[in-house]
Amino acid sequence: MTTMSTIPQVEQDLYPTRKGTEAALLYRRDPVVWGDAADGPMDAATLASYDENGFLSVDPLITPDEVERYRGELRRLSEDTALRADERVVVEPESDELRSVFEVHKISDVFAELVTDPRVLDRARQILGSEVYVHQSRVNFKPGFGGNGFYWHSDFETWHAEDGMPRMRACSFSIALTPNYDYNGALMIMPGAHKTYVSCMGETPDDHYRVSLKNQEIGTPDRGSLSLLADKHGIAQLTGPAGAATIFDCNCMHGSNGNITPFPRSNVFIVFNSVENACVDPFSAGKPRPTFIGARDFTPVR
Amino acid sequence: MTTMSTIPQVEQDLYPTRKGTEAALLYRRDPVVWGDAADGPMDAATLASYDENGFLSVDPLITPDEVERYRGELRRLSEDTALRADERVVVEPESDELRSVFEVHKISDVFAELVTDPRVLDRARQILGSEVYVHQSRVNFKPGFGGNGFYWHSDFETWHAEDGMPRMRACSFSIALTPNYDYNGALMIMPGAHKTYVSCMGETPDDHYRVSLKNQEIGTPDRGSLSLLADKHGIAQLTGPAGAATIFDCNCMHGSNGNITPFPRSNVFIVFNSVENACVDPFSAGKPRPTFIGARDFTPVR
Repeated sequence: MTTMSTIPQVEQDLYPTRKGTEAALLYRRDPVVWGDAADGPMDAATLASYDENGFLSVDPLITPDEVERYRGELRRLSEDTALRADERVVVEPESDELRSVFEVHKISDVFAELVTDPRVLDRARQILGSEVYVHQSRVNFKPGFGGNGFYWHSDFETWHAEDGMPRMRACSFSIALTPNYDYNGALMIMPGAHKTYVSCMGETPDDHYRVSLKNQEIGTPDRGSLSLLADKHGIAQLTGPAGAATIFDCNCMHGSNGNITPFPRSNVFIVFNSVENACVDPFSAGKPRPTFIGARDFTPVR
Repeated sequence: MTTMSTIPQVEQDLYPTRKGTEAALLYRRDPVVWGDAADGPMDAATLASYDENGFLSVDPLITPDEVERYRGELRRLSEDTALRADERVVVEPESDELRSVFEVHKISDVFAELVTDPRVLDRARQILGSEVYVHQSRVNFKPGFGGNGFYWHSDFETWHAEDGMPRMRACSFSIALTPNYDYNGALMIMPGAHKTYVSCMGETPDDHYRVSLKNQEIGTPDRGSLSLLADKHGIAQLTGPAGAATIFDCNCMHGSNGNITPFPRSNVFIVFNSVENACVDPFSAGKPRPTFIGARDFTPVR
């Protein structure tokens, strides 16, 4: 395993953003894969492809029976009217339909199991080359008939600016609970763009998360940078059946289009961060976001 | 050729819609293909597939040099600030970018050539089994970085309700001037759904076209009907290179998602109607729409 000690542990900001200056493209200063083939279930070729593209698919990651069980739990959550008042629940601006439930591994015992599932956890540890903790978890509902898209962004840019995540040593699992077609707003990633960091313009307003979870503007890359990256790397759209998973690097440039089809899209999303990369003070915000969005408890998952 | 005389020519409304009543699914009462293989460039199998699916692709319809010429003309139109004041020009609500230019075959000599081009005209005549005239023409710009989608609709429903088109005997040519990927808002069609007519709820307000060209609500199918049709027919997304064309029936259930990618999408769109199906008074509106949207001059193209 590569450990943090092989990289100078400095407190300087390697990934400046939202400093009010112009947008800039910066080199990534961190590895993408921190472990190796001996550390977990993925072979060297799989890890090499993750390193190159910034993502990989596992199809299936969970069985059809498990998909049904998780979908049942999703229905239960979406019908739980008491939950609507919970600050961890986000609704679609226009339709008032459920969009996301954060910290779902703490709200739901059913989803809690996924976090410790070896199919998930062993892969996270292997990629990050260390013990890991959950930085964020959520379920996303993307309703049909006009559900909104998510504009292009790097998760790391936000986690660095607003949560104080120092380095790029985190990865996300998106496990599909409905089919992802090429026409219902599937995840799009620019393959390879995770090795470039897009420093964004603007400054983080107070309590930015209340707006950004619904419709982010600050912390989104400028059009010039996006055009450069899309021309160089192209766009991969991640389609697949329910039960498949996409694992992607924290600095992937990703987004999704809206969805006018009748087919909704739901997934579970779990972010693991290395315990050697625990969050410090935010790099470009007054105070950290609430812990249901960016955890401050760095206890390893076991 | 099948001629109109084989179907009773009655003035009754075979396709009621927007009568303030509930939504309903009705059978199509008209053929899809009115000519046969002897009448034009398409063979019997091609026509049979058009009959079954309601659309077909011609790839390529025009050459790369022609694509370049039309793209140059598009740029000229989009840079013509005087044109912005023309009522035939529609701009994107949020960004003020050009969305459509109607009656483009009258505004632009370059695009006028397409209407009489035998690769286009002979196919239109063959499908409609008669001489044809242009009911509508336009170029569409779908900007990247968040261009809006078009919600599901049947063009015929609007042309019947607002323009007085009596029967389903019209077809549209969409000629791509930029690549249509599966992630930049390509045309989606429910294959086979053109044989079902979705009668819509609501009533047409005065001057509805001023709103509906930007963001249509009246004349859009209800969610129940869309779910039934999508479950039965599925969704085809029409991707392909610049220069390819999609020909589709007037009653196709179609739409498109938004487009957050940097890749814009532009096309030329020409609607031919049979001269034997000339428009009468609107079936569900006070007065016909302006002639740049729905022609009242039924002179055959020659």
